[in-house]
Amino acid sequence: MKSFIEYSSNTDFPIENLPYGVFTSPKNAQKHIGVAIGEWILDLNTISHLFNGPLLKDKQHVFKEAKLNAFMGLTKPHWIEARNTIQKLLDVNNTKLKNDNDLRQKAFIKQSDATMHIPAEIGDYTDFYSSIHHATNVGIMFRNKENALMPNWKYLPVGYHGRSSSIVISGTPITRPLGQTLPVEGADPHFGPCRLMDFELEMAFFVGGPPTALGERITAKQAEDRIFGFVLMNDWSARDIQKWEYIPLGPFTAKNLGTSISPWIVTVEALRPYIVNNYPQDPVPFPYLHHDDKFNFDIKLEVDLKSEKSSVITTICRSNYRFLYWTAKQQLAQQTVTGCNLRPGDLLGSGTISGDTSDSYGSMLELSWKGTKPLRLQNGEERKFLQDGDTVILRGYCVNDLGVRIGFGKCEGKLLPALPFKE
Amino acid sequence: MKSFIEYSSNTDFPIENLPYGVFTSPKNAQKHIGVAIGEWILDLNTISHLFNGPLLKDKQHVFKEAKLNAFMGLTKPHWIEARNTIQKLLDVNNTKLKNDNDLRQKAFIKQSDATMHIPAEIGDYTDFYSSIHHATNVGIMFRNKENALMPNWKYLPVGYHGRSSSIVISGTPITRPLGQTLPVEGADPHFGPCRLMDFELEMAFFVGGPPTALGERITAKQAEDRIFGFVLMNDWSARDIQKWEYIPLGPFTAKNLGTSISPWIVTVEALRPYIVNNYPQDPVPFPYLHHDDKFNFDIKLEVDLKSEKSSVITTICRSNYRFLYWTAKQQLAQQTVTGCNLRPGDLLGSGTISGDTSDSYGSMLELSWKGTKPLRLQNGEERKFLQDGDTVILRGYCVNDLGVRIGFGKCEGKLLPALPFKE
Repeated sequence: MKSFIEYSSNTDFPIENLPYGVFTSPKNAQKHIGVAIGEWILDLNTISHLFNGPLLKDKQHVFKEAKLNAFMGLTKPHWIEARNTIQKLLDVNNTKLKNDNDLRQKAFIKQSDATMHIPAEIGDYTDFYSSIHHATNVGIMFRNKENALMPNWKYLPVGYHGRSSSIVISGTPITRPLGQTLPVEGADPHFGPCRLMDFELEMAFFVGGPPTALGERITAKQAEDRIFGFVLMNDWSARDIQKWEYIPLGPFTAKNLGTSISPWIVTVEALRPYIVNNYPQDPVPFPYLHHDDKFNFDIKLEVDLKSEKSSVITTICRSNYRFLYWTAKQQLAQQTVTGCNLRPGDLLGSGTISGDTSDSYGSMLELSWKGTKPLRLQNGEERKFLQDGDTVILRGYCVNDLGVRIGFGKCEGKLLPALPFKE
Repeated sequence: MKSFIEYSSNTDFPIENLPYGVFTSPKNAQKHIGVAIGEWILDLNTISHLFNGPLLKDKQHVFKEAKLNAFMGLTKPHWIEARNTIQKLLDVNNTKLKNDNDLRQKAFIKQSDATMHIPAEIGDYTDFYSSIHHATNVGIMFRNKENALMPNWKYLPVGYHGRSSSIVISGTPITRPLGQTLPVEGADPHFGPCRLMDFELEMAFFVGGPPTALGERITAKQAEDRIFGFVLMNDWSARDIQKWEYIPLGPFTAKNLGTSISPWIVTVEALRPYIVNNYPQDPVPFPYLHHDDKFNFDIKLEVDLKSEKSSVITTICRSNYRFLYWTAKQQLAQQTVTGCNLRPGDLLGSGTISGDTSDSYGSMLELSWKGTKPLRLQNGEERKFLQDGDTVILRGYCVNDLGVRIGFGKCEGKLLPALPFKE
């Protein structure tokens, strides 16, 4: 497949990808829906009249919205028709858009000129804990090897409700939080800046399809039509605050200080060529969680760290989405098993994605093994946890035997120093 | 104070109350903002042009919205001006509305003719755990008397993020959920209908004021301008599902099956005459949680249970909001301490409000002491937990020495039988 838009062979955004995002540009302060192609954005607002397929010809208004919820709220056949339409319009052999200079002028914006925004209104955000290596590592560190995994962990995808308001787009700086911690076990707690500031390498998917009713259950077998697409996610974590606050109701202020996502939503259709075997599950999950088809993806993930003190970037983690024990379908089934209703635009996070080797761990907590094994950066500095001024950059991409690369762009954030406390 | 609208002396909605809600009526399917007065609703959409005070004369559009977020997103002086305006318009000596028959005809709707709706878009919902008697009871049942309260409990208001999508208005039935439980410790888990279905007697407040920025902190001393008003809340809970799933990340599917709220938001201004001393706190909270002024309320709370088998209603709990250890200001300060941003319409729940006597416990778990002391209903039936067909009705009201009663109406829900599992 070839587009009339030229791009380099290692772009994240070839014609096979076509991820959705929301952007503004110097020429237009209104949020528009767009699709990434090479170094460009195709503005779908401007070409909404070209969605003339049988399903979308009466739904062109969804491309005029300032967020993706209305498009997500349609059905999978609509999403496939949209993808086919865009792919056709961008094809090197199709003259419709290629030879319409006026429209081309309006419809393409350089990504470097655009500002990206949260692509959908996220009604609710859930974060899971679905990497067996991550859960095991944390269990060993805080308990012991024999009891590393909690008894429920292999029976259900453990998860918790997160905070929607504090989800921010890649590039937004994050401020080191103040909070309560317990520096000495058994002593009094302390209030001050977080000392164990961490990132978490995660991916998350946006829920699609019409809203469901309260009481309605979606099993893993029925879940595919509900999964719109994926982004990278950095679930910034204040480890010392988390440890003191989380018993018995789970993480709260240690997580709601900011959660970064990458701006481009890569659809399931784009990821389909990179499907791999699911992680072997023993015991066999309950029927509501069971699905036979493959729904795991070979997505290579990297975490780069850049200190403020130099321009040298160190790749501190190389992991892969395929390490997840629970699939996105199973996460969605767990989310709804007691009848919780979904809305298009809901975001479900994977939890930290750690591999089985020490260079594939998806957090500083694991990489430095609770601070006992400092990481050496390429500029000579050492890190146990994040320092003020550190920039964390997540990247993700698939590549197949034919060399077609489907990328997620990046999810980047810089950690700013704590603000002093004012009464 | 006297209104030209007549109501009985024991109404929940005298002219001193004026709670806000959103309703539709047979005459008008569009959602309007209204205020309860006696058995009537004053339709603010219809009289928005009468908000002519210095602050609101340019903001009348907020009363034309289908939800309260825009009004909540103004400031406390705006809310006070609105209250004063409405109180004046309803005053027996004011002829503006009283003698305008056309407008009166349009502006008043019988509550019995109206359908109430969720009053605001709830961007995020948090639930706290702020009753010391409830936390102690649960601690004794699941651990022991000596370690009933967790070490963090008296240092910070423990809370967790809940699910916004499943918050429903009073009257919405709740379906008994299916889920995983562990009937025998150490054995395999089981999938099926929840067996330990419970209610939780709570109150919750809506956040007001303009949105805050990520990284911004609101201390307890600054919190008052952010608290718009209160509702009753029933946080339906599947105790057996919760027990199996909640380690280590907290309650998830055991809580997102439905959370009911009462439709009328009673403002802080209306509650002011019923302010009482805060619960004594030892240790003294950190400065970000500290406030000297009283922000506790004498709100009498009741839970009624009605079996499907008879029309007899049994009051199974009499509690009071004043039993809460942590104030709403402290809850808000905890919510934002690490920089979590707020949006008007956010909802913060108190947690189960239990008193210090066994007839004031705010859940079946505590009232039946984990099922060991069945409750006897007035129709002769017994209850350990909720049975299918049970209706739970929460009520709340303040009453002072002058006999002025400020009520919350009711928060009601019926438990329907579980739906069979279909693959």
